[in-house]
Amino acid sequence: MTQTNRCIVADIGGTNGRFGIATFHEGQVKPDIDQVIVFPCREYDSLSQMLGAYIEKLGSSVPREAKLAIAGPTTEKKGRLTNLGWEVDADQIARTHGLEAVKFVNDFGALARACPFLEEGVDFVTLKNGEADPAAPISVMGPGTGFGVALLVPNGHGGYHTVSTEGGFMAFAPGSRLEHDLTEHLRTDLGYVSVESFLCGEGIARIYRFLVDYGGGGDRDLSPAEITKLAAEGGAPACTRAVQLFLSIVGSTAGDIALVHGARGGVFLGGGILPKIADMVGPSDLLRRFVAKGAQSAYVETIPVHLITAEYAALVGAAVA
Amino acid sequence: MTQTNRCIVADIGGTNGRFGIATFHEGQVKPDIDQVIVFPCREYDSLSQMLGAYIEKLGSSVPREAKLAIAGPTTEKKGRLTNLGWEVDADQIARTHGLEAVKFVNDFGALARACPFLEEGVDFVTLKNGEADPAAPISVMGPGTGFGVALLVPNGHGGYHTVSTEGGFMAFAPGSRLEHDLTEHLRTDLGYVSVESFLCGEGIARIYRFLVDYGGGGDRDLSPAEITKLAAEGGAPACTRAVQLFLSIVGSTAGDIALVHGARGGVFLGGGILPKIADMVGPSDLLRRFVAKGAQSAYVETIPVHLITAEYAALVGAAVA
Repeated sequence: MTQTNRCIVADIGGTNGRFGIATFHEGQVKPDIDQVIVFPCREYDSLSQMLGAYIEKLGSSVPREAKLAIAGPTTEKKGRLTNLGWEVDADQIARTHGLEAVKFVNDFGALARACPFLEEGVDFVTLKNGEADPAAPISVMGPGTGFGVALLVPNGHGGYHTVSTEGGFMAFAPGSRLEHDLTEHLRTDLGYVSVESFLCGEGIARIYRFLVDYGGGGDRDLSPAEITKLAAEGGAPACTRAVQLFLSIVGSTAGDIALVHGARGGVFLGGGILPKIADMVGPSDLLRRFVAKGAQSAYVETIPVHLITAEYAALVGAAVA
Repeated sequence: MTQTNRCIVADIGGTNGRFGIATFHEGQVKPDIDQVIVFPCREYDSLSQMLGAYIEKLGSSVPREAKLAIAGPTTEKKGRLTNLGWEVDADQIARTHGLEAVKFVNDFGALARACPFLEEGVDFVTLKNGEADPAAPISVMGPGTGFGVALLVPNGHGGYHTVSTEGGFMAFAPGSRLEHDLTEHLRTDLGYVSVESFLCGEGIARIYRFLVDYGGGGDRDLSPAEITKLAAEGGAPACTRAVQLFLSIVGSTAGDIALVHGARGGVFLGGGILPKIADMVGPSDLLRRFVAKGAQSAYVETIPVHLITAEYAALVGAAVA
């Protein structure tokens, strides 16, 4: 194994930065990821500082390259972590840490790039079977600190073009009276209500507070993590209802995005939140809402839907970017 | 000019079939389109019959190939015209008319393929300036008998991959109290309300009838063509209001689709309806709604928006398919 076959990879969201080492072995398309360490973003002032902390933990044998997936708009050399307000410069980070090359990629772009390399049962579970058309696009999306949306378009030579989008900011289309009331309630605060208004950690808290205020009480001040934890454990009806409504909105939105992408190649759901509530997906309305698309229900019914469970998936994508 | 440089092209929607001859001249990337004839679909029982009528009008010098853009899901050899219920078979049509090759392409896929060849001021007008990123996708969409949506993704070698989608069936997100009331009114009849429920000829009639019923009277039984004609002439307030609301919904939907496509390469609006009401676009809310996307308004503000005015645009796209 030579030095050039290893690189530092990272996936920096709004909450955590996950760092690891990707190693490409001969005759193997999917890189191995190891030495994974997660750093809470709030404990650092910059991406460079987080990377420095990781390099310090590595000790010796530090790879000479880094490929960093960041939650925000980015080019290879300059980017911005939207929720943290961090402006980042690849060449400056490389100089600071004595690296030969540093490259950025959008976090959902990285997750999308990983999808063709992921293994069923190991890295993802299939929520809904279908007939994936290998010549058609694949949609990749998921809630985390925001709602990321990306698209893979087959290039006709066995690979894909990756398209990063801002699909999380599409207007939200309520699918029930409850969703309408919730939307109008949020509109007062937010002005514009996008799918991301609901489909992120803070979105779960918004749904939960609305249900508490209008549905019969409960502790208003739970964090998104507490709500999903209590919902998964059972015994906290308002938390369970909030997560169920959240999953309905995931399904409806995923169906809309699949239609707009022509994603007959499949839909991959990822991000930080869904794996934690994976057991609640089955009994939820997610799949029913995914296919409830009127005259085109038959079209979305052919589309397989997968849930990415591997925590290092975006690191694989950053490595192959 | 050799025979192989000419082909029959057509764009068959739900209402009309537009046929022409595409000629590729040496040193010219955009084919010339001439001998255009429009046939009303309702006067024919099949696509083959329409093509026969066109070939008969041509008389001598009939090209040996045909490339037919059809409004519906299709492969190169088999397709379905959704609104007419016509199943079509390319090889059978070729045999019937003694052609060497017949090929289908989706009508919005064809319109999308045409976009890189269209000329500003000749084939399209720019509704809104922006900074088109040549490395980013281009969204192509428009209302006609249905609401077509396609996507061009740069292939990195100066060309594009074309993606046909069913984006017209995404759920509609009301952006005002009036749009909410209209949506709930339609939901009673349609069950599921998509953007196409409004963004097509029948959609204009639906908006108009709602305004007549709930807004103060008028002749309920106008056709979509009559409504747009009266609106363009002025003097029929309910028609004008219906078209204004229609254009607002075009703008809001185009903004959502641009976000979901990551269409920083631009948005092209086409289809049969918009060129007829082009003069009403300026005073409408179309562009205001296009950019009203909350935290990502700055993103959509950079995207240029064009209106395709060339009636033969999809024929150019069929020719280059």
